[in-house]
Amino acid sequence: MRAAHSTDGYFDAHRERILEDWFELLRMPTVGADKGRAAECARCAAWLKRWVRSLGFEVEVCRTSGHPVLLAERPGRPGSPTVLFYGHYDVQPADPVEEWHSPPFEPVLRGDRVYARGAQDNKGQLLAALLGMRACIEAGLPLPGLRLLIEGEEESGSRGLAGALPGLRRRLQADVLMVCDTALHPSGRPAITAGLRGLAYVTVTVHGPDHDLHSGTHGGVAPNPAVGLARLVASLHDADGNVAVAGFCDRLSPPSAQEIELCRAEPFDAEAYQRATGVAPEGGARGVPVPERAGFRPTIEVNGLRSGYAGAGLKTIIPASALAKISLRLCPEQDPDECLDALLAHLRERCPAGLRLEFQDRHAGGAGFRLPVDSPLSRLAADVLTGLDGRGPAFVWEGASIPVVGALRAATGAAPLLVGFGCEADRIHAPDESFSLAQFDLALAYSARMLSALAGG
Amino acid sequence: MRAAHSTDGYFDAHRERILEDWFELLRMPTVGADKGRAAECARCAAWLKRWVRSLGFEVEVCRTSGHPVLLAERPGRPGSPTVLFYGHYDVQPADPVEEWHSPPFEPVLRGDRVYARGAQDNKGQLLAALLGMRACIEAGLPLPGLRLLIEGEEESGSRGLAGALPGLRRRLQADVLMVCDTALHPSGRPAITAGLRGLAYVTVTVHGPDHDLHSGTHGGVAPNPAVGLARLVASLHDADGNVAVAGFCDRLSPPSAQEIELCRAEPFDAEAYQRATGVAPEGGARGVPVPERAGFRPTIEVNGLRSGYAGAGLKTIIPASALAKISLRLCPEQDPDECLDALLAHLRERCPAGLRLEFQDRHAGGAGFRLPVDSPLSRLAADVLTGLDGRGPAFVWEGASIPVVGALRAATGAAPLLVGFGCEADRIHAPDESFSLAQFDLALAYSARMLSALAGG
Repeated sequence: MRAAHSTDGYFDAHRERILEDWFELLRMPTVGADKGRAAECARCAAWLKRWVRSLGFEVEVCRTSGHPVLLAERPGRPGSPTVLFYGHYDVQPADPVEEWHSPPFEPVLRGDRVYARGAQDNKGQLLAALLGMRACIEAGLPLPGLRLLIEGEEESGSRGLAGALPGLRRRLQADVLMVCDTALHPSGRPAITAGLRGLAYVTVTVHGPDHDLHSGTHGGVAPNPAVGLARLVASLHDADGNVAVAGFCDRLSPPSAQEIELCRAEPFDAEAYQRATGVAPEGGARGVPVPERAGFRPTIEVNGLRSGYAGAGLKTIIPASALAKISLRLCPEQDPDECLDALLAHLRERCPAGLRLEFQDRHAGGAGFRLPVDSPLSRLAADVLTGLDGRGPAFVWEGASIPVVGALRAATGAAPLLVGFGCEADRIHAPDESFSLAQFDLALAYSARMLSALAGG
Repeated sequence: MRAAHSTDGYFDAHRERILEDWFELLRMPTVGADKGRAAECARCAAWLKRWVRSLGFEVEVCRTSGHPVLLAERPGRPGSPTVLFYGHYDVQPADPVEEWHSPPFEPVLRGDRVYARGAQDNKGQLLAALLGMRACIEAGLPLPGLRLLIEGEEESGSRGLAGALPGLRRRLQADVLMVCDTALHPSGRPAITAGLRGLAYVTVTVHGPDHDLHSGTHGGVAPNPAVGLARLVASLHDADGNVAVAGFCDRLSPPSAQEIELCRAEPFDAEAYQRATGVAPEGGARGVPVPERAGFRPTIEVNGLRSGYAGAGLKTIIPASALAKISLRLCPEQDPDECLDALLAHLRERCPAGLRLEFQDRHAGGAGFRLPVDSPLSRLAADVLTGLDGRGPAFVWEGASIPVVGALRAATGAAPLLVGFGCEADRIHAPDESFSLAQFDLALAYSARMLSALAGG
């Protein structure tokens, strides 16, 4: 049973208008990684500018080296802290488009869920948080000082924002850095994210012959880039699923006893995991409990492979090249650049005879972090979340990364507070991404309650 | 200096008309593996029917389960042997089309070379051989009894012909099975192909989650199909490049001393290989000379890989599945079906925990073979080739496969004679396939001379 709050019922009372805004936001195909979508990203930033201005914010859309960043400010109750709210309007690519049951940029409500690319990540959660602010304003509740920072390249490395950050530093100073881009605990309880992994990535291409060769004439003669790439990828992990790259794990320090205790507080439900994903949680280091594997261990994953001919029928070739897109998730102690160096050195050392390596898209996306679980901010958030769900929050160490959070913490001095309302069924980054109205409503209510609590309301 | 023959100069004398026919043949995009090209294949068979009929053949276009087969017959000089000439009008897919310097089905002559898919393999060599017959007929030279068998699925497994073969058996009986689908020796000398490898293939898909997963949340938790596939592919060879599949190589018997001697007669030019292909001949079993690796050793090659997102930018996912197209080239002693069984068992045993394997397109394409190097037919062919090139022919054991040759030999009792005029620069199966006018002329001259020699002329 929820504790009462004067913004309760806001979503239901304004459902039609909210869905209209949400759908309009989702219709803009703001795939930040796609340079061809620059106009859509600019349009989306302008749309958000109008929307946010209507709440009494002073707003500016700032140019960056990439897609624009929206910066907004609204004074709060005197004496209250300043909250920097961070979100992003860019979305992941929609491929494979043919696997969507409705077009990714034509949002539809089916049952309790809105389906579209970005329905949850992050347009849905972002809009819900902004609506929490509107709910407070319309209810006449005090708010803390608010600064908004909404960027357009989170899914592709936040490069534009990173470049602009030094110049924006002064305007972003805050006490709390509020981010609504994470998930509920798998049990459905609210969750405070106490850790995120760092991110880095690189595209590895193995070059062989200068054109595809006949696999008969040349089979067993020319080195095969697809086989060479497979051997390189296979060398990244040992037989027990541990990362086997020299120097990669040197800096790792184990979680504290309190972290392990909180991490194990809620038992991991392997069957529920399999129902939600279609696969047993059998990846990564053998013998390590799942939440600790995701929260406290690094991983090297292949996001995609491409080589030769993989269409219908047969094409008996030795391909000219083979490509793997590789991403790393790193523990806070690991330096993304050092890890990339270790990975590339590992691959170079093992490059099969006759083949040649090329690295592209190298990006050290930012370090991971762990937050104190017993700070006043954590305790206030836990109270607010207990008011929304009597079970109170779980503390989770997520395997995912929001690299910009580390950079913003460093630039602004603000204490991060990561509470989000996603769940596995949302299928973010995949076909048929969605967000339920119930999750949206919860995100809205949390935003309203947390902000009024921070304003001392 | 060539020995004289009354068909000498035929190509030069009819160059314009010949190029017109050749280009017309190449303009038909007869990609046999592509079911959407059935009409083009039928059109090509009809075109060949008209062309061959004009030489006095009785011709029939036979339906098969796939693309039609052209069957033709022409009586020869009384007492002469019967030659079954085999060729194919289908071609490999043209992908990647964007790498062609001119459209694959719009033949052009640049310098001495005709560029188009099929320019060499096999439309070019086929037409040259047919023109050799026309040259003899127009010069009034005697010919042996001729049977033509021209199919449309050589590049995709000859399934239609294989199904039709039992019914055509009687009409295909012959003394010699002449095939013009092979290559010159890398030194440029003519070559008699004394062996071909068998072929088999299969598409392997590794299934993981039922949709792409976020590589952060799930990295190190969900098993990654792309990594799993890489580990499976890497397990197919040992560190020295030998096939490491149990049971795969059990039946191998080494080449005879005479075979090794002939195989080593012409030194292998590794630098020329690298110039032609862009890669050093560093594939396959370490320490085995290149011609023996291709001629007397089996190989497992990956023709293509596909998994997850491999486009521009970044998509941080654990892909739902990963696919490899795998082809085998086999020694005569190896049974393609047994080898596929061994491969699939090997993969099944090693399938990483949580992942699931699926096999598609399984096809045992036919065994390889080795021919006697000192038969009367080999000696006659060697004489004819010495007449064309004073260096005489090299005997080669090619790594490629023409699976149908084994089947035709079994069905007809004919002795195979494989002499072809391809070379590495032709880039068959790859973008910018071409065939030079000089090679075409040589193929034509060989056909004319060999056939008149067989007719006792």
